[in-house]
Amino acid sequence: MGEFELIRQFFMPLARLHGPHSIIVGPGDDCAIQRVPSGSDLVFSLDTLVEGVHFPFHYRPDYLGWRALAVATSDLAAMGADPTSYTLALTLPEADESWLRGFACGLGKAADAFGLVLAGGDTTRGPLALSLQVHGLIPRGAAILRSGARPGDLVAVSGTLGDAGAALDYLGAQACSDPQSFSADEAFVLKRYHHPEPRLELGAGLRGLATAAIDISDGLLADLSHILEASSVGANIEVARIPVSAALKRLKGTGARDYALHSGDDYELCVTIPEANWTGAPPSLKQQFTVIGVIEEAPGLRLDGAAVVSESDTLGFDHFRRKS
Amino acid sequence: MGEFELIRQFFMPLARLHGPHSIIVGPGDDCAIQRVPSGSDLVFSLDTLVEGVHFPFHYRPDYLGWRALAVATSDLAAMGADPTSYTLALTLPEADESWLRGFACGLGKAADAFGLVLAGGDTTRGPLALSLQVHGLIPRGAAILRSGARPGDLVAVSGTLGDAGAALDYLGAQACSDPQSFSADEAFVLKRYHHPEPRLELGAGLRGLATAAIDISDGLLADLSHILEASSVGANIEVARIPVSAALKRLKGTGARDYALHSGDDYELCVTIPEANWTGAPPSLKQQFTVIGVIEEAPGLRLDGAAVVSESDTLGFDHFRRKS
Repeated sequence: MGEFELIRQFFMPLARLHGPHSIIVGPGDDCAIQRVPSGSDLVFSLDTLVEGVHFPFHYRPDYLGWRALAVATSDLAAMGADPTSYTLALTLPEADESWLRGFACGLGKAADAFGLVLAGGDTTRGPLALSLQVHGLIPRGAAILRSGARPGDLVAVSGTLGDAGAALDYLGAQACSDPQSFSADEAFVLKRYHHPEPRLELGAGLRGLATAAIDISDGLLADLSHILEASSVGANIEVARIPVSAALKRLKGTGARDYALHSGDDYELCVTIPEANWTGAPPSLKQQFTVIGVIEEAPGLRLDGAAVVSESDTLGFDHFRRKS
Repeated sequence: MGEFELIRQFFMPLARLHGPHSIIVGPGDDCAIQRVPSGSDLVFSLDTLVEGVHFPFHYRPDYLGWRALAVATSDLAAMGADPTSYTLALTLPEADESWLRGFACGLGKAADAFGLVLAGGDTTRGPLALSLQVHGLIPRGAAILRSGARPGDLVAVSGTLGDAGAALDYLGAQACSDPQSFSADEAFVLKRYHHPEPRLELGAGLRGLATAAIDISDGLLADLSHILEASSVGANIEVARIPVSAALKRLKGTGARDYALHSGDDYELCVTIPEANWTGAPPSLKQQFTVIGVIEEAPGLRLDGAAVVSESDTLGFDHFRRKS
């Protein structure tokens, strides 16, 4: 199958424009064109996933399609933006139709779920990797940056943390096991890894309320540290308050805490919010978050008052340090 | 060197915003933010380059930086857009400082030359490859698409064709030769390959004049065919009119014609333009183009009246057909 036929069969259907949208020209020309409404800013983020680094070798292509787009879209959620379109740079060792069908299926399901339309891309031959750029819109000046946290703001996280990190322990076994051979708890954390759901509604709901936000891709400590550095503040976290799923507690016992602190891939949000805004926030929003600490003037990150000093405690996932 | 240090040292300087620009938030947050002026549309294109496929193994990193951004920016020229920003997804086997310094230098020179600022990106570990997305602005409705060619329009190309394709014959020798060992003609075509210059001024000058445009990345026949298909028209090309450099003629003799017809990598523009618009176009624009044929109602591409029938004659470069 040639490149053009491959694009026509598997990717052009993902560019079909349902309902109102801001893509004036989609794939098939030299460039795509997006019309940004006046009063809105364009928000965008580019992510790369490489086989063997960001996802396992021989990873299910439909899972990959979903996960890749979810990971990229999570950055839009962390800004409070509404998704509009995405571009895909797909590098493949060969044009394997069965693989492409699965990949396009997972990608399409994710795009429909998140409100994204394929606007353009590039397919090339090489080691399996993909780069996705997602585009969103946000009312001018309403983006939630990393740099707005102020002393006294509460630190809150959505959902539960550590599940997807724990799933890494079962991915290897999953490759040669029957799905039924996993316990319900194992299946739960595996789903958290394979099927992340960007917190788009939560991010949009936080506009005008949160002072800073980030999505947790590298681990709570690493990602919260990015907020602290960008905002020139510190924080104290009460470890016992960090939300951990019952499944993770049963699977990892007292080790669950370490997963919640250090492991990424959950794509929950970590936000800072002034106490008055928290008190006045809609209950439906508040019940999706857990307050775990407070922003302080003194720089640095503290756990129950004790400074986090070791670099390995804070850094989470760094592609050029990791032993692969 | 860690990922964050690598980004800080080599890429943050490329995000320094000189003078007026539309990037509100650059690298370092979850997303970048671009403010699109009302009355303008956002135009964007994503390109991937893989080592060993789109550029030779052990290719000079400063050449790669320039060439990668030039190739991507050429798509903006083909729409008639003004460049604004770009994102970079860089996948590297290791954080080699000397390589990164060279790459960032070439990339920065190209960005300055084209008027682009780095808005964001991602660095990952893996086989050497990069994806670049370029963003530009164009007055609403002024983009030059592939689909506007009409019977009677003239077909014109900028510059000379085939030079960069001929350079491929000398790239291997260049890896272990002194620069002085190349003849002036060989050095000329090598520069055309290493240092393409997107025809941004020509593209912008064609707004309101050209009915269709494409940049020649895959070869004249292949790329003109894209215009013909998108516009549902045909064309006749007078082969003797195709502009070929004196250097290419001396190097390849009668074979120069085949390079001009089939080889890509020159990143010149191929445009269609109604005769009245051509007549009335500014002389400074006209002298950059050569009229090589005419758009006809009958579908298909003809060379001196003879139909091009063989698929291999028209397809140019297709990543999933090519024997690599």
